[in-house]
Amino acid sequence: MNGNHIDAVDALFNPRRMAIVGASANLGKWGNIIPNNILRDGYKGELYLVNPRGGEIQGISFHPSLAAIGKEIDLAMITIPAEVVEEVIPDLARAGVKVAIVISGGFSESSPEGREMEESLVKKAHDHGIRLVGPNTMGITSAQWSLTALMPPVRPRPGHVAFAAQSGNLGTQMLGWGSYRGIGFSRFVCIGNQCDLDFADYLEYFARDEQTRAILLYVEGFKRPRRILELAEEISTGKPIVIYKAGGTGAGSRAAASHSAAMAGTREIYQGMMRQGGMIQAETTEEMLDFSDALVKMPIPRGHRTAILSWGGGWAVVAADLCERAGLDVVPLPPGVKEELASLLPSYWSKGNPVDMVGILDLDAHTRCLEVLAGCPEYDAIVSLGTINAAGAFQLREQAKESGGADDKLDEARHHYVKDRSTRFAQRVVELMEDLGKPIVTVGMPQRDSDSPEASEFPWDRISIYTNPERAARVAAMLVERGEYLRSRGV
Amino acid sequence: MNGNHIDAVDALFNPRRMAIVGASANLGKWGNIIPNNILRDGYKGELYLVNPRGGEIQGISFHPSLAAIGKEIDLAMITIPAEVVEEVIPDLARAGVKVAIVISGGFSESSPEGREMEESLVKKAHDHGIRLVGPNTMGITSAQWSLTALMPPVRPRPGHVAFAAQSGNLGTQMLGWGSYRGIGFSRFVCIGNQCDLDFADYLEYFARDEQTRAILLYVEGFKRPRRILELAEEISTGKPIVIYKAGGTGAGSRAAASHSAAMAGTREIYQGMMRQGGMIQAETTEEMLDFSDALVKMPIPRGHRTAILSWGGGWAVVAADLCERAGLDVVPLPPGVKEELASLLPSYWSKGNPVDMVGILDLDAHTRCLEVLAGCPEYDAIVSLGTINAAGAFQLREQAKESGGADDKLDEARHHYVKDRSTRFAQRVVELMEDLGKPIVTVGMPQRDSDSPEASEFPWDRISIYTNPERAARVAAMLVERGEYLRSRGV
Repeated sequence: MNGNHIDAVDALFNPRRMAIVGASANLGKWGNIIPNNILRDGYKGELYLVNPRGGEIQGISFHPSLAAIGKEIDLAMITIPAEVVEEVIPDLARAGVKVAIVISGGFSESSPEGREMEESLVKKAHDHGIRLVGPNTMGITSAQWSLTALMPPVRPRPGHVAFAAQSGNLGTQMLGWGSYRGIGFSRFVCIGNQCDLDFADYLEYFARDEQTRAILLYVEGFKRPRRILELAEEISTGKPIVIYKAGGTGAGSRAAASHSAAMAGTREIYQGMMRQGGMIQAETTEEMLDFSDALVKMPIPRGHRTAILSWGGGWAVVAADLCERAGLDVVPLPPGVKEELASLLPSYWSKGNPVDMVGILDLDAHTRCLEVLAGCPEYDAIVSLGTINAAGAFQLREQAKESGGADDKLDEARHHYVKDRSTRFAQRVVELMEDLGKPIVTVGMPQRDSDSPEASEFPWDRISIYTNPERAARVAAMLVERGEYLRSRGV
Repeated sequence: MNGNHIDAVDALFNPRRMAIVGASANLGKWGNIIPNNILRDGYKGELYLVNPRGGEIQGISFHPSLAAIGKEIDLAMITIPAEVVEEVIPDLARAGVKVAIVISGGFSESSPEGREMEESLVKKAHDHGIRLVGPNTMGITSAQWSLTALMPPVRPRPGHVAFAAQSGNLGTQMLGWGSYRGIGFSRFVCIGNQCDLDFADYLEYFARDEQTRAILLYVEGFKRPRRILELAEEISTGKPIVIYKAGGTGAGSRAAASHSAAMAGTREIYQGMMRQGGMIQAETTEEMLDFSDALVKMPIPRGHRTAILSWGGGWAVVAADLCERAGLDVVPLPPGVKEELASLLPSYWSKGNPVDMVGILDLDAHTRCLEVLAGCPEYDAIVSLGTINAAGAFQLREQAKESGGADDKLDEARHHYVKDRSTRFAQRVVELMEDLGKPIVTVGMPQRDSDSPEASEFPWDRISIYTNPERAARVAAMLVERGEYLRSRGV
């Protein structure tokens, strides 16, 4: 079956027409929930629902068979019981289906009989020129087609991270959590049992995919580790690959074996492989999102000299510690920069790096300090703390005038002011990153609304706000390491 | 001045009457912002505003002097310029003030002249029997008195964590972030320059304070490390002390010296001291909140045998790894427990610890599985993943009936269902922790509304929800270590 795997994955993520085999009028069945999710998010292709017993979902009548549709179908999604999946393969082939997602569980993950059934299914599919995703998968998404073919009610945010996950519940929850936080995804696939298409196939496709700028993998075990390493070495100088490898301990490996029939391998073997392949290892699930998102939104620094700008002293101290521990070089301020900053700040400012803006209430001064630091060629990366969702809160004069000083209105005015100022600062951060080609990693406290991606003017698709300096320092260090890796490969 | 420090801190956190010296009718001045914050949160004592030039805030007229109030004042808050603070000390003494918070900056943190001025101020205050907080502080809060005497517009949530911070901006932002996440605070003090009252005084008070069940310290440098160690050894078998020590690196130490005139000391010296004093070291700012909150809300486990319950396989694998790496013992299921769980779960469940509930949609079964694991005497702690804000989303039958299947209503119904089910599960978690005396550490994805403390029926004051398994594993490991420490001291 070599050769057609890329066409199959292409059909998976770019289906002009897709069919749900096992559609159900019964609310609460997967054959009902999945089409409802697809319709909710406005899939741009044509959706067909197949069930010989008839019925309809949101006005779309069921076809009694694939043949009855009378059109060529690119992608089929199968929600019928495991035992009868193999039977529909010839119908899929006749309808021109290139790839089928088998949602159904009860295959190799559950019993030796299930494993036999899975092997037989793969053979039959290959005999008919069909490639398979799953079985035992929660589905896929593709932003380009506004396609959310998932079991859970997650609404993915469109963007440029492609994510392949060896766990439906972890994968879809990360997808939801990331989207909630303003992280956008180009493609998502829950790989299920990898009976046919596997990590290597998705990785190869993501590498070529123009919609994808960073690749994220949640891995319990690779089926073809050599092929992964070969691909990673090819890909990772161009497109970054972030990987979270689960199942490193005894308990985790046992759990992985029962979960996805995966041999988890030892942590050391995988770590060596990841290093050799230039893959970026996330140590936590939060880092999976932080790293892949940062690689889409931020330029790669040319070195490890880091300036820290903080609204106040405490965060400056903490951030300086964390950056040094993460291997960044918090180098002293050049004299010219020191002078420029001194002209913007009160006499009692820190006069060093980190730059402590000693709680000044003037957001324009924050912005100018950022411009001075970011513009200085002695710095490769900037960490900026405390301005977003914070400093604006103090500049109350103008709003207070408008509100007439009434307490509830004052509070509301503060809120809008913070939102507005945070948005302006964030927009400037984005411009500076673009103009100067260096990353500006920002830390801000969450604030109802303004930390929500729905705050529409906030440039969520081009900036990440971290809720603490630890995350910012780790992201900055990751970007610096990425830069070192690329230079070591002559990129 | 020994002896009266506890009375002074008591007056600080329990002032029947307080006065703002330097109140201002000028919107945007601290002398205006702080009284507005105090009035907004409904301080239960009497608030007096002092300014010889007259004026008013929210209908409260200014008194021309402290003497003109004609009542005994417990606490004064000083917002006048540094140069004139010393002049008001005799007036404070005549009004019976026990403790004064000096908001004003421009003392030892900024120049040698400032240091002289600070030393002179302390001498004068002590001569008049007055103790000082600050200078260069952002203020204090006290939940018992609904007192929010702070510069920033933070609204602290009442609770049982007492927090002393050697940084106003870090401290108040942590206070705001924690409150947003459902963490409650009994007292908060931004210690400023510690010219008089210092960490040791606050620590001694918090130890005796009935409103406080866990103590949190953000430390750049101690003034009296020996006294802290002595106190910690006394206190920490009774009340837990969580500490975040900043300024361990070169860059951090330099920043700390300029920020709070603190000698940061080496990381190793402080770590030895923390261990000896039974203090719990937070490695990140997020852990400051996670640990102090968990110690208020969760029982201490009797050992390190941990059961993991997960809605799905991926999180189970990740959590098992993390728990083992954190030193917890993910021991196999006893046969009886295995049988009981088998009767609640489909045939293809994991049949081991971690317990993978294989994505079942039945929240009552989740609850019963939790009851079985928590009730088993072979387990000292439980980590429960994925039920809160997740599983409920799938049980759509009943809501779908009500909504008639319309997409928007279905979505709304789902949302309320998730909220309702999550709340019921959380309530059961709280009951089980109380009945069984063992911690149940829960992981759930954030969901608009139901992750917000405003979702009123959700038992936020008695449960913590972590957004990823890393945080849950670290919290569980911290609780286990706390148990070991207490047993080693015969508690």
